[in-house]
Amino acid sequence: MSTIKGKVLVAQGGGPTAVINQSVVGAVLEARKYPQVTAVYGALRGVSGILNEDFVDLTECTTHNLEHVALTPSSGLLSTRDKPDRAYCHKIFEVCKAHGIRYFLYCGGNDSSDTCRIVNEEADKAGYEMRVIHVPKTIDNDLEVTDHCPGFGSAAKFVAQAFAGVNLDNRALAGVYIGVIMGRHAGFLTAAASLAQKYPDDGPHLIYMPERPITKKQFVSDVKKAFAKYGRCIIAVSEGIVDSKGKSIAAQFTGGEKDAHGNVQLSGSGALGDLLATWVKEGTDISRVRADTLGYIQRSFLGCVSESDQQEAREVGEKAAQYAIWHNQDGSVAMKRVGDYAIEYFLTPLESVAAKTKTMPDKFINKAGNGVTDAFRNYCRPLIGEMPIAERISAPSVKKILNKKK
Amino acid sequence: MSTIKGKVLVAQGGGPTAVINQSVVGAVLEARKYPQVTAVYGALRGVSGILNEDFVDLTECTTHNLEHVALTPSSGLLSTRDKPDRAYCHKIFEVCKAHGIRYFLYCGGNDSSDTCRIVNEEADKAGYEMRVIHVPKTIDNDLEVTDHCPGFGSAAKFVAQAFAGVNLDNRALAGVYIGVIMGRHAGFLTAAASLAQKYPDDGPHLIYMPERPITKKQFVSDVKKAFAKYGRCIIAVSEGIVDSKGKSIAAQFTGGEKDAHGNVQLSGSGALGDLLATWVKEGTDISRVRADTLGYIQRSFLGCVSESDQQEAREVGEKAAQYAIWHNQDGSVAMKRVGDYAIEYFLTPLESVAAKTKTMPDKFINKAGNGVTDAFRNYCRPLIGEMPIAERISAPSVKKILNKKK
Repeated sequence: MSTIKGKVLVAQGGGPTAVINQSVVGAVLEARKYPQVTAVYGALRGVSGILNEDFVDLTECTTHNLEHVALTPSSGLLSTRDKPDRAYCHKIFEVCKAHGIRYFLYCGGNDSSDTCRIVNEEADKAGYEMRVIHVPKTIDNDLEVTDHCPGFGSAAKFVAQAFAGVNLDNRALAGVYIGVIMGRHAGFLTAAASLAQKYPDDGPHLIYMPERPITKKQFVSDVKKAFAKYGRCIIAVSEGIVDSKGKSIAAQFTGGEKDAHGNVQLSGSGALGDLLATWVKEGTDISRVRADTLGYIQRSFLGCVSESDQQEAREVGEKAAQYAIWHNQDGSVAMKRVGDYAIEYFLTPLESVAAKTKTMPDKFINKAGNGVTDAFRNYCRPLIGEMPIAERISAPSVKKILNKKK
Repeated sequence: MSTIKGKVLVAQGGGPTAVINQSVVGAVLEARKYPQVTAVYGALRGVSGILNEDFVDLTECTTHNLEHVALTPSSGLLSTRDKPDRAYCHKIFEVCKAHGIRYFLYCGGNDSSDTCRIVNEEADKAGYEMRVIHVPKTIDNDLEVTDHCPGFGSAAKFVAQAFAGVNLDNRALAGVYIGVIMGRHAGFLTAAASLAQKYPDDGPHLIYMPERPITKKQFVSDVKKAFAKYGRCIIAVSEGIVDSKGKSIAAQFTGGEKDAHGNVQLSGSGALGDLLATWVKEGTDISRVRADTLGYIQRSFLGCVSESDQQEAREVGEKAAQYAIWHNQDGSVAMKRVGDYAIEYFLTPLESVAAKTKTMPDKFINKAGNGVTDAFRNYCRPLIGEMPIAERISAPSVKKILNKKK
């Protein structure tokens, strides 16, 4: 048990998820139980809010309010795209010291875990006792060490439900349908579209992930083949797909706006979907070709959440508070899959997660590079929970009278 | 009570909805109760399937199967974009006659109601007793006479939940967000985005519908004003928005592919959203501008349905069977709103609905033409049912120490 008396600071960084508030609420409610915690602060707008001391006192939140916030998607404490360097992290530490903050719990992706690492080092250097815990979240599921990331399951469920619906729609009015999914380097979220399949001829019939390069020729050839087989073709494509030189296909067509991390903007534009639709229209004689970009809705939609994701997000938040206050440790909370399917939580060093990206292992991608394996399906299914009912009419055909075949 | 012994034929036409299968299942289960009904057929792929006698015998479906199909979005009997002329309708009648079909229940929008009208006339001309009922469905909510259309409520709920989520996301990472919504001539579905607002500063802050022309100048000026006020700006735009000459803005940029009805393709492309994003980027100094096109997901998403829409869709299907078989009448099933909020069903002549389009009444659109009125909110709210919880953190601010203002 840590004996340092002081405040807890909670914040959120990077893109929101459907369950990131569960983690914050888990951390806050757990932290409020300890006698050595004098107050629980929340920083607004992540690290940028810390620098500016934009703090709210979460000790005064009603439990009722917090429980409703937990059910709300996106970052209740708001977020930031700032990626702190060492000088920035030193300022974070200075503010923490000024406010008597002894426990810093930061919920975010791999950039945020790197911030945790540097802030922790700055505190150590100054000889200021401060526990720093990284609370994992990302819809991309691209953090190292952990089996999967809170936030991924709910986004994966949205993608699966979207493609299940699109599959039914495309079955009713046949054609080629291209759906572009978030994921800059890792194809996990795009691969989750595979869980939309129920009947053997259900889409998506093709899945393209950033882990395998695609060429226009192969893409068009794949579509032709699938269309010949099914009379229609549904394609799930990651926004991060690359050409044979490893260059982002989308980045070559979206004007190249860059964010603070130097990443080219991929989301918030329909350009990639429209480009792929043009490839199909030019390379085949299929007339009905449609492209949608799932966009921000896939990470923020109000009313689509995976139950297991919700519970795990809550627990990593609670665990973060326990590791910091009870166990007096620094690190990143991670999950280990045991059995089929249960989760054990553990703490991994910040360095093992910080600024690293995990991509889809080879065993999850089919040989042709245009689909997933059963290993992936088994990995992903418990993360999204149950799918809503989608059933076909089961009725015998009637004999033709006027159109009888001779 | 009709005394004509014969078969019932059920089919679906046009774009699917989340609850169109409720209507078909309602019609089938009700029709199976009548002793004068010898079988209930379903035509696959709408009117095109009738011509080809692609019938399945729904009399043999299990109730369990039908009840699960009812919960499934999109057209279980598949659909068609064929818009029959008189010769086509005559063939439909010939097939019906050959199969002893005496009751034709066709579920679709205003084009489908016109098909019903002509088939009915062809049967009358030939002196063949056949009841024809149009079962309304459309996410556009653009049918005349009826208070609203089955299918609209669920699509409206999806749009409201999508914008509620996007609003939370955009609050966490501020910028301009443009969401493009389906609706060629009628702005009802786009207007439903307004139901995403809970807190006074929630988006959408601007809503553009096809009923009011927009200019680049006014659009950019509106965005600037909203951004200055809220520090961010969420915009709901109908795919059918027109310029001051009444010309579709999207159609001028999507290559102009036309469907069988001579309509230019608007959906299945991100072009309009990207164009509007360019307008904002060029006309303001706002750096973070994102555009999503909600696409096919808004009408097909598996797992987002309005309870009232589901029930009403079921009832218009049951009523269709009752009007045809019990009351021996032709027409289109319509809904009347009574009190606040209950529904009474009635039959309206096919001519009153056929090939007509209803748009948003003036009282639903604000004076500036960039938002909706409370009259619209009151009209729409019961149609979408309850919204999921979305709550903000309610906590007092903490006094700054290092950044004290002088």
